[in-house]
Amino acid sequence: MDCLEAIATRRSVRHFSDAAVTDVEVETLLRAAMAAPSAGNQQCWRFVVIRDAETRARLAVATPYGAPMGRAPLGIVVLADTAAETFPGNWANDCAAAVENLLLAAHATGLGACWLGVHPGDEREQAVAEIVGAPETLRPFCMIAVGHPDAPGPAVDRYRAENVREDRWS
Amino acid sequence: MDCLEAIATRRSVRHFSDAAVTDVEVETLLRAAMAAPSAGNQQCWRFVVIRDAETRARLAVATPYGAPMGRAPLGIVVLADTAAETFPGNWANDCAAAVENLLLAAHATGLGACWLGVHPGDEREQAVAEIVGAPETLRPFCMIAVGHPDAPGPAVDRYRAENVREDRWS
Repeated sequence: MDCLEAIATRRSVRHFSDAAVTDVEVETLLRAAMAAPSAGNQQCWRFVVIRDAETRARLAVATPYGAPMGRAPLGIVVLADTAAETFPGNWANDCAAAVENLLLAAHATGLGACWLGVHPGDEREQAVAEIVGAPETLRPFCMIAVGHPDAPGPAVDRYRAENVREDRWS
Repeated sequence: MDCLEAIATRRSVRHFSDAAVTDVEVETLLRAAMAAPSAGNQQCWRFVVIRDAETRARLAVATPYGAPMGRAPLGIVVLADTAAETFPGNWANDCAAAVENLLLAAHATGLGACWLGVHPGDEREQAVAEIVGAPETLRPFCMIAVGHPDAPGPAVDRYRAENVREDRWS
C-alpha cells in the first residue's frame, strides 16, 4: 500500500475477525516499530507479544481502555528499558514513534490495530508491568490490539487549517 | 512509495540542497501529521511553519540539537494546546505519532526531515515558545527541519530480536 494512502486511511480497529495473525506478520510489525527514530538513536523500546488468551484477558481489564486486548487474536505490550536510555526522559516519545510505525504497517498489510494507552498513568503502568513480569526499569508505554479487521472503517479527514500558522503563533 | 519501504528506508536528514519546499508539499506533510491517532481523538497538535530565515536561525541555537533548522529551507515547530486536551497528559504521545507520520510522508515524497527534540526540557521549551510567540497553554514538543536531502543515506536495519519476548518479559 502507498505510504501516503496508508497514513490517510489508517483507522483504530477495535473489533476483529477470527483469523489468526501469523509469526511472519508479527515480525513485519516489529521490524516497522524498530525502524522508528529515537532520541540519540537509543532504541530502548521493548515488546512483549501476547498470544496467550488468559494473559490478554487480564490485560483487557488492567486499564479502562484495554478491552480490545481480550477480543483480538494477538496483543503487543510496548515497554521501554529506562536503564538503557542514553537520552533520559525521551523513552515515551521514542515508543510513540515506534507504535505509529507499527500501526501503519498493520494497516498497510491488511491487519487492523488499536493503540491502548497505558503511560502516563501510574496505576495502569503498574498493573500492566505486573501482568507481563516487567522488572522495575521496564516502563509499560501502551498495549496494541492486533488482528484482521471485522469491518474496515472509512477514512476520516482530520486536517484542520486552523491548526497551522506561519512563522509565529501569535 | 510503498508504506513498508518508506518505514524501512526513512533516515534522519540533517543536510539539504538549496531546493525550496513548496506550499503543496507542506500541506501534504501537515495532512499526514494530523491523520495520526490521538488520545480520545483529541487532536490538540498545532504547527508553526517557519520559512523566515531569521526565525530559523534563532531556533537553530535555541536547543543543543537545533542546528538543522538553520540549514533547512523550512522548519516546522510542533506544539500542543494543552488547554484543548480532553485526555490530559497525553499531548506528547499524540504529537510524537503526528511527527512520525510527517517524517514518513516527507521521505515518501522525496523530501528529507529530522526530528529535533524540545520536550521534555523546560529550558528548551521556554526558548522555543518565546521565539514562536506561543501562549502559556501551547507547549512546544519538537522542531522538524525539512528540505530536499543533500545526499540520501542508505537504509539501516534496527531490528533486534532480543527486544522481543513472548507472553511475559520475565
